[in-house]
Amino acid sequence: MSQTSFIRADGRSQSEMREVKIQRNWLETGEGSVLVNFGRTTVLCVASFVEGVPRWRRDSGKGWVTAEYAMLPRATSERTSRESVRGKIGGRTHEISRLIGRALRAVVDMEALGENTISLDCDVLQADGGTRTASVTGAFVALADAVNWAAREDIISLGSRPVLSDTVSAVSVGILDGIPLLDLPYEEDSRADTDMNIVATGSGKLIEVQGTAEHEPFSREELGELLDLALAGTADLTRLQREVLFGENPIDSRIIGGC
Amino acid sequence: MSQTSFIRADGRSQSEMREVKIQRNWLETGEGSVLVNFGRTTVLCVASFVEGVPRWRRDSGKGWVTAEYAMLPRATSERTSRESVRGKIGGRTHEISRLIGRALRAVVDMEALGENTISLDCDVLQADGGTRTASVTGAFVALADAVNWAAREDIISLGSRPVLSDTVSAVSVGILDGIPLLDLPYEEDSRADTDMNIVATGSGKLIEVQGTAEHEPFSREELGELLDLALAGTADLTRLQREVLFGENPIDSRIIGGC
Amino acid sequence: MSQTSFIRADGRSQSEMREVKIQRNWLETGEGSVLVNFGRTTVLCVASFVEGVPRWRRDSGKGWVTAEYAMLPRATSERTSRESVRGKIGGRTHEISRLIGRALRAVVDMEALGENTISLDCDVLQADGGTRTASVTGAFVALADAVNWAAREDIISLGSRPVLSDTVSAVSVGILDGIPLLDLPYEEDSRADTDMNIVATGSGKLIEVQGTAEHEPFSREELGELLDLALAGTADLTRLQREVLFGENPIDSRIIGGC
Amino acid sequence: MSQTSFIRADGRSQSEMREVKIQRNWLETGEGSVLVNFGRTTVLCVASFVEGVPRWRRDSGKGWVTAEYAMLPRATSERTSRESVRGKIGGRTHEISRLIGRALRAVVDMEALGENTISLDCDVLQADGGTRTASVTGAFVALADAVNWAAREDIISLGSRPVLSDTVSAVSVGILDGIPLLDLPYEEDSRADTDMNIVATGSGKLIEVQGTAEHEPFSREELGELLDLALAGTADLTRLQREVLFGENPIDSRIIGGC
Amino acid sequence: MSQTSFIRADGRSQSEMREVKIQRNWLETGEGSVLVNFGRTTVLCVASFVEGVPRWRRDSGKGWVTAEYAMLPRATSERTSRESVRGKIGGRTHEISRLIGRALRAVVDMEALGENTISLDCDVLQADGGTRTASVTGAFVALADAVNWAAREDIISLGSRPVLSDTVSAVSVGILDGIPLLDLPYEEDSRADTDMNIVATGSGKLIEVQGTAEHEPFSREELGELLDLALAGTADLTRLQREVLFGENPIDSRIIGGC
Amino acid sequence: MSQTSFIRADGRSQSEMREVKIQRNWLETGEGSVLVNFGRTTVLCVASFVEGVPRWRRDSGKGWVTAEYAMLPRATSERTSRESVRGKIGGRTHEISRLIGRALRAVVDMEALGENTISLDCDVLQADGGTRTASVTGAFVALADAVNWAAREDIISLGSRPVLSDTVSAVSVGILDGIPLLDLPYEEDSRADTDMNIVATGSGKLIEVQGTAEHEPFSREELGELLDLALAGTADLTRLQREVLFGENPIDSRIIGGC
Repeated sequence: MSQTSFIRADGRSQSEMREVKIQRNWLETGEGSVLVNFGRTTVLCVASFVEGVPRWRRDSGKGWVTAEYAMLPRATSERTSRESVRGKIGGRTHEISRLIGRALRAVVDMEALGENTISLDCDVLQADGGTRTASVTGAFVALADAVNWAAREDIISLGSRPVLSDTVSAVSVGILDGIPLLDLPYEEDSRADTDMNIVATGSGKLIEVQGTAEHEPFSREELGELLDLALAGTADLTRLQREVLFGENPIDSRIIGGC
Repeated sequence: MSQTSFIRADGRSQSEMREVKIQRNWLETGEGSVLVNFGRTTVLCVASFVEGVPRWRRDSGKGWVTAEYAMLPRATSERTSRESVRGKIGGRTHEISRLIGRALRAVVDMEALGENTISLDCDVLQADGGTRTASVTGAFVALADAVNWAAREDIISLGSRPVLSDTVSAVSVGILDGIPLLDLPYEEDSRADTDMNIVATGSGKLIEVQGTAEHEPFSREELGELLDLALAGTADLTRLQREVLFGENPIDSRIIGGC
Repeated sequence: MSQTSFIRADGRSQSEMREVKIQRNWLETGEGSVLVNFGRTTVLCVASFVEGVPRWRRDSGKGWVTAEYAMLPRATSERTSRESVRGKIGGRTHEISRLIGRALRAVVDMEALGENTISLDCDVLQADGGTRTASVTGAFVALADAVNWAAREDIISLGSRPVLSDTVSAVSVGILDGIPLLDLPYEEDSRADTDMNIVATGSGKLIEVQGTAEHEPFSREELGELLDLALAGTADLTRLQREVLFGENPIDSRIIGGC
Repeated sequence: MSQTSFIRADGRSQSEMREVKIQRNWLETGEGSVLVNFGRTTVLCVASFVEGVPRWRRDSGKGWVTAEYAMLPRATSERTSRESVRGKIGGRTHEISRLIGRALRAVVDMEALGENTISLDCDVLQADGGTRTASVTGAFVALADAVNWAAREDIISLGSRPVLSDTVSAVSVGILDGIPLLDLPYEEDSRADTDMNIVATGSGKLIEVQGTAEHEPFSREELGELLDLALAGTADLTRLQREVLFGENPIDSRIIGGC
Repeated sequence: MSQTSFIRADGRSQSEMREVKIQRNWLETGEGSVLVNFGRTTVLCVASFVEGVPRWRRDSGKGWVTAEYAMLPRATSERTSRESVRGKIGGRTHEISRLIGRALRAVVDMEALGENTISLDCDVLQADGGTRTASVTGAFVALADAVNWAAREDIISLGSRPVLSDTVSAVSVGILDGIPLLDLPYEEDSRADTDMNIVATGSGKLIEVQGTAEHEPFSREELGELLDLALAGTADLTRLQREVLFGENPIDSRIIGGC
Repeated sequence: MSQTSFIRADGRSQSEMREVKIQRNWLETGEGSVLVNFGRTTVLCVASFVEGVPRWRRDSGKGWVTAEYAMLPRATSERTSRESVRGKIGGRTHEISRLIGRALRAVVDMEALGENTISLDCDVLQADGGTRTASVTGAFVALADAVNWAAREDIISLGSRPVLSDTVSAVSVGILDGIPLLDLPYEEDSRADTDMNIVATGSGKLIEVQGTAEHEPFSREELGELLDLALAGTADLTRLQREVLFGENPIDSRIIGGC
């Protein structure tokens, strides 16, 4: 089939991202705070910089980066009860929190960060598919802002090696009715046969590939097509991340390496 | 001392509110969704309308309104750990959730609401004092929007009695260095001798009076001065609530009684 | 209507307390232990004195006072399940525990107490309305006994300033069928339009005012009448507290200031 | 050595119980409520009668009896934190709750009880050794009162078979410095080599034998001596139980069988 | 570099699995019970067949398959505390439980299973890397046995479509010092730059691809090499699974489709 | 009745144990690891040796031994939900964990062990009655292996006193239809009137006697008969324990005293 002729419910082509917006300094608290939109999906990503590291990391000369993901109860079309009220965190929340943390750590030079900890809080205000990929993409920008803050405050010194070796962004891809699609909203995601999330660096290397056959197992050829779509998407996101970080009110250029 | 000559750190007089903003329909989810600011304090108030009532209320012909309050981890100047991660809800969270629910129920005609439940989620995105009073004030607007939605959807019918007998708003007042002040930001609140939260109806009746001597017990005269300040504040908030509800994109005028 | 002619179900006038009893040294454990009755409401208040303070208070030269409230499962007319079995503490329990702690701390001179901690446990053995006000009233006496114990044991030295700047007691007041009433038993409390708890010092200053419109919002006039009733009630309680503390087996007179 | 010449710290002989008191109707709530003392050990035992049985028991024609044991935080010489605050019930609490329930069920004719549930709450107000044996002994009296209440209310009918086939009581015994002792207070219990709790019927049959070598394993001869002491103790308790149940304000004589 | 010449610490080549053993009917309980070894990694996989489905699935005509993964405390070289004792399940446990469930569901024809539920419990007795992949591989065999049991008991009838559309197995692959390796024991896994788990069907289709850059992001070429290794591994596992299921004591051949 | 002529459902006489197997070194992890069978009951007992003791034991010169018991979800004929998933440990689990710990500690010379901790994990893989007695019996062997390991590693030195003063084993006995029986499988246990667990040393002294009348209270004569049966059973178990510990791959003979 010809990909270009296929039009999705929201008017996009197969390989088109939803409108992505990244607003820095959205709050007055947080060493970095970013409101990110992937279409109607809206996530508030806040970075908290704390001097010192968890006990198991002490005297290593290395820093630490961690993340927590959560959804407000009415982010979704029906209200879901709060995990704080239920008294435990669900498997999905845990899984996504871990993913975001791993994704960011892959580009952090822990020695350049020094014995400092940055915590990223990604709270989904509105959910329409792709909340974890929007979280990774926004959290990276908040992380860069937090590093920039620490450099400006002389808590860390910018040396020859960048603290962040590259940028990081993420997108979802999936196969729906046999057609590979980029950046699925809830309506597509819930019907897709295969659902994949890709985290990649700005230079196009892979950090995380998580593909799941929801209904139909998929072939290596399909995996290849999905990766093509995804890497085109993360390339777009990388451009946007660099634009917002180095456009207005730019961070120190030595903080991010990668290209 | 002459009250009028006293100027606060942020330039306000004793009896002046911070800048208050109430934005309706801030999300695309929620039968009502309001972003409310009291100065830098920012709360997202979302109303969820569900047909049916909790088991203990069934077959009573009456509805129910409930509320949950929470803070994002980095709403404050230092990060606090999530209650979902700690696995239990703190006393302060419980207390404020209960306050918001009680405050709203005081003006709801449960029979006019019918056997329907409205849940209000008040999530503090940024905290600078007065989060509970901003929550009550914003939640009332979201509640009114949810009732309006249900009326438009013909889930409830607007009869002779308004579903909401009056509007509800709330402010904090306190005594700092002997001077009564309206609407305290965190910097003032943390140093105040007496801290009081008042919930009042649009017609100036009291729903809740919670005054606490943080350091010095207070006299009945001081209580009187604080009530004067507070009721002037809620009168201002009432005007703003009516403006946003009946200005652009107005709700049905039969929903709210009270004046 | 004429207030004096109104007779309540239990034979009291509007402004009359139920029979109040305060028995000191009810247990052989506890540095202070008090059984308090407000009519059928029975609360065991036990003070535990421990040298040292919580970590956040160390090296401040100041002490700390805290409180926990709980109900036995069959304190009420129907059994309620234990919070320990349910695995979490309810909002009401949290709220009352916090209230008792705040109320007592308002009269404690933390420097005179030194780096010592007193914990008050208020366990309701039988509940018939007013459990929180009986708890505050009884806990104050147990607190005074614990301070007296520590002075006798030479753990704290009684200086020029009393450790307790005044006495503290509490009562409930409410409006039922338009009539303001003092010290409501369950039967009245459950039907009241407005329910208010007042904590006051022996010299008549206010520590806490918590008034809630359960059904009908109330006016400032009604608030005034309720405060009049309440302060008459706390004046009675103050007399009784001083009687039991300074009558048989009296505590050191330097411990409590206030009049 | 000659047993009769041995005198304990509190002046008792080896085979003497501490002073035991059983007060019925100690609360106005509860279908039975008993304050029991074994010396300074004080337990409040309250029976709650509810029509109906747990789901797994429905339509069996049989009733159910269950028990919960807990200690107030300052029942002991040092305060212990509340299990409700810690959020979980400790192993010891579980173990004793189960023991009390089993002990009582051993004499309940579940068919004669019919599809009704009786819950016993045993809350230790003051602990000085033997809290579980005092709980069993007091709980039996509260149970009998609850059955009597239900018979008087015509919820159960007293037929040819007694609802309670016999009385139940319990004592602790132990070996201290080689000497077998009856009814150990904390001071003895904490130093004993062997610690045993016996639950027996009024007619001298055994319901539960729980003996533990705390330090030194024990022989069958020692086990025999301990059982002799214990059964003498439960015989005393049986007499007292019958006295309080059939003396003043007696229960229906058909409720308890056994002798 | 030449892959064939590279020898690992345990003597294997790059593309060689550890010794894999699958023992069926390891317990007398469970409708299927399998002990699976991947080298020293030992997992007990037990399938429980229950008629009926969870509430949200009722009257759909479809079945459900779910899984829970856990580790015994001393499966690892140092003891880890029990999740039951800690009172909550960690993120890793949740994540793996969800993975196993998804992997198995991908080959289950839920309509052919009918309204029945199969729960797979995968308990790691000894852990040396690859516990999740051994779990998936063993759980599939236990699942097949449970379906066979239900067919033999006439709870489900084997129709034209197999209940299991294909077999499922899983392996880990990783890049260590630049060299792609199959089936990593703990010693290799803990040092690998990239760690990937692949779940595949017997016919070579992909169900799950989870690749993570632990230190260095990886290229698409490396991803390709890892997939080659992994699919060779799952082909081996598929052969072994078919051998044990259709060799001694074979299951009904109609249960599994796929080739 | 003549005991010898009575034959049980599984062909045993009254006083005959089920087939008991004790396999040492069942895992490659654990300083001792034992798979023990009492008939179909199968328990994995693993000892973990850690240098150091819990805080309350520090600088005492003494060691500590503790135990945890758990059941896999499908150890039983119907699946039970995991305690980790339910978020709390049940009363039965707590009770048995405490029993195992106490039983082992009764023969440990804590000074000879030095400031080291040994944790025993007893996980029931298959349950058919007697899981706690099998656990104690197997855990003792794992404990001895762990002590032997520490001696071989020169962490503890074997002095004049054995670290383990004697062996420990346990059996269940019960009365079924009036007949005393040794080592009850589930089918007998669930119908028994009286159920007793005995823990004894190799030299025949008692460590724990736990007898419960499940339906009918029992007499002292019956208790005597049960003890006779039980001590014959533990004598058999003692022989087997010594055989496996001192047969193939023997531990140091100085570790265990007792005969």
